[in-house]
Amino acid sequence: MLPNLTPDTDLAERLFDELRAATFDGVGITREAYGPGEAKAHAIVRAAAEQIGLESRADPVGNLVMTLPGGDRQAKRVLLGSHLDSVQSGGNFDGAAGVLAGLAAVAGMKRAGFVPARDVSVVALRAEEAGSWFPVSYPGSRGALGMLPAVELAVKRQDTGRTLAEHMRQEGFDPGFVEAGGKTFSVADTAAYLELHIEQGPVLDAEGIAVGIVTGIPGSRRLRKARVLGEYNHSGATPRKYRRDAAIALAELAHRVDERWVELEAMGHAMVVTFCVLATTEEAGFTKIAGEARFQLDVRSVNPRSCDALMETLYEIVPEIEARRGVRFELGAETASRAAPMDAAIQAGLTRAAQALGVSHKAMASGGGHDAAAFCNAGIPAGMLFVRNQNGSHNPHEAMRMDDFRAACAVVQRWAAEASA
Amino acid sequence: MLPNLTPDTDLAERLFDELRAATFDGVGITREAYGPGEAKAHAIVRAAAEQIGLESRADPVGNLVMTLPGGDRQAKRVLLGSHLDSVQSGGNFDGAAGVLAGLAAVAGMKRAGFVPARDVSVVALRAEEAGSWFPVSYPGSRGALGMLPAVELAVKRQDTGRTLAEHMRQEGFDPGFVEAGGKTFSVADTAAYLELHIEQGPVLDAEGIAVGIVTGIPGSRRLRKARVLGEYNHSGATPRKYRRDAAIALAELAHRVDERWVELEAMGHAMVVTFCVLATTEEAGFTKIAGEARFQLDVRSVNPRSCDALMETLYEIVPEIEARRGVRFELGAETASRAAPMDAAIQAGLTRAAQALGVSHKAMASGGGHDAAAFCNAGIPAGMLFVRNQNGSHNPHEAMRMDDFRAACAVVQRWAAEASA
Repeated sequence: MLPNLTPDTDLAERLFDELRAATFDGVGITREAYGPGEAKAHAIVRAAAEQIGLESRADPVGNLVMTLPGGDRQAKRVLLGSHLDSVQSGGNFDGAAGVLAGLAAVAGMKRAGFVPARDVSVVALRAEEAGSWFPVSYPGSRGALGMLPAVELAVKRQDTGRTLAEHMRQEGFDPGFVEAGGKTFSVADTAAYLELHIEQGPVLDAEGIAVGIVTGIPGSRRLRKARVLGEYNHSGATPRKYRRDAAIALAELAHRVDERWVELEAMGHAMVVTFCVLATTEEAGFTKIAGEARFQLDVRSVNPRSCDALMETLYEIVPEIEARRGVRFELGAETASRAAPMDAAIQAGLTRAAQALGVSHKAMASGGGHDAAAFCNAGIPAGMLFVRNQNGSHNPHEAMRMDDFRAACAVVQRWAAEASA
Repeated sequence: MLPNLTPDTDLAERLFDELRAATFDGVGITREAYGPGEAKAHAIVRAAAEQIGLESRADPVGNLVMTLPGGDRQAKRVLLGSHLDSVQSGGNFDGAAGVLAGLAAVAGMKRAGFVPARDVSVVALRAEEAGSWFPVSYPGSRGALGMLPAVELAVKRQDTGRTLAEHMRQEGFDPGFVEAGGKTFSVADTAAYLELHIEQGPVLDAEGIAVGIVTGIPGSRRLRKARVLGEYNHSGATPRKYRRDAAIALAELAHRVDERWVELEAMGHAMVVTFCVLATTEEAGFTKIAGEARFQLDVRSVNPRSCDALMETLYEIVPEIEARRGVRFELGAETASRAAPMDAAIQAGLTRAAQALGVSHKAMASGGGHDAAAFCNAGIPAGMLFVRNQNGSHNPHEAMRMDDFRAACAVVQRWAAEASA
């Protein structure tokens, strides 16, 4: 029988306001990964955790761990968390919602005098949005899990030109921990990681559902710097057979790849396919046939075979278009990431909690990547709970409703109480 | 029986060198329409014409008319010419070749003591490339033909911000002539206009033919500022059915319009169809679905029904894509220009001349527009002779071979001798 708990969502709402006030940049919220904005957010959250009596510490790479001690301090602990950094001029909820939900859950436990059987720690992971500052993914969680190759410490931040290691050091942390293969969390000491996050897409809002229970974080196959090379020629004076038109070659590729997506979806493949950039270059202009175009392609699915089926089609179409249209594709390096299935027991536990609390829910794949993928890849059971949200994420217009957030906090708390019992 | 004439191509070659030396900008040739580069070129050509004893005068809008007097000064005259201005950093041949061919032809007549029955005038028309400096087409030839609406004198040059009228006045000319409806040339006093020009496409070179006898200058239907509006969304988190992807909507439109071109061509329509610009905007980027894309479309044919057939398909496809993909097309204003068929008797005369001289030739449509279209639209029989050329035009790499130019000058001269007999 679970105790009658409620999350302290007033605390969370107060902290959302404090975070916004401290890191509003005039347009949106800016909390640079391993930079001043993130540091301000960590200071605010840490002060709140200490005020409610949690044990707080930062690990050597800056992740903040705020613990409600359990009856057995040696038992594997339960983690609730997310990140506090943001993209440039992003929204106040992406990341912060997961950390504040964790605080609301354990604050409510503490207020009720509930002592879990094992430690429940709220974690504020560093630099989940690092990808928009450094060319590196999840250095905070991977750094805590012993999964960040030391070589990635040398990547440079685009605007400052300084390395990740230098930015870590400047914030008072120790990249040497990464070089030495240190671990803050491991399979041996961690039972589960649950991350609440705003949904970054429109599905829950469109379907009138409060929370999503995430089945997995998709893997991807991506082209980030692909080009089509043809020949600039006079648009009036060059008959079809003499053309090497990069623009129309790219349009054909994109349209046929999109048609293949429709086919695969009809066959049951759950995936997304996006030509994020599709563009002639600045040299293009009126009365010219485009000699060059560039594109970015992002293919994602929880099922790697879906990504593969799509890319196989692309690799078949490309030489055919090259031969027929006299152009050359330079696809550049393909990058890929592994899919991260969420733990089945956590999904079941979240479903039970939502049902018990009467919170509308549906199972769904994540769209974006999250720190939960790093935990999954490290072998730690991971789960995610999405909260209905309007206007997407990574922009100042994120608009999670507090009613939905409160309902989601209750699900998190109930799951955590069960998981730590 | 035609006299045994040869063009003075040495003169033309010397003038090509002088023009290049005077207007080379470090990259290519720059001879601004109604600007210093064009003025230098006119001075060089006028001095040469005076040296060989032609009657030279500039008309009120700056067109240079260099006349070899005929036996009957009252008879309708024959014009040979083109323009001397260029695009920014263009090539030395586009335009100048037609003026220098005219000079070579009449210089050769004069050298041989040939007196035509009617005046033969070489004309250097102003500002044929005006479109790349001002938003106006052919102000020189249309100004000479009484076909330039006075309102177009008020268009502003993009870089200087000053009007066409001001630039004309600064060069010493009189825009009042245009306002008063003056004419330098009319049906009443002009028998024919022949313009030699480098081919701006690759056809003659690819087919090993020296000259092209132009059948007509195509008309066009054009979209210069078309857009597709969708919605920016997270590329991972937005399933297909929630997308409003501007990039893929544009790719589909372009690909299907291109397929329609293939169909029309197979049905015998001679035309060209070009998406000159096809591009997501700067806001596009990795992990975003593009919310906006823009394009320019250029459709040309000597046969207006071919342009119409293509545009009809486009206007059918657009609402279908809008409905299926949740995007909105803003096609902007469509601009159109009339086709200008070249005079059948001039085409026949050029063919006879090429045959007599053993110069390889083929009938072909022009790709680009030319001053000859203005003469045609004014009711004056007009013709064009294209010269084989490598590397297209409007760039510093134009590469007409002098052998081809000499052969083309001989065709021009022979035709002019016959036409002025």
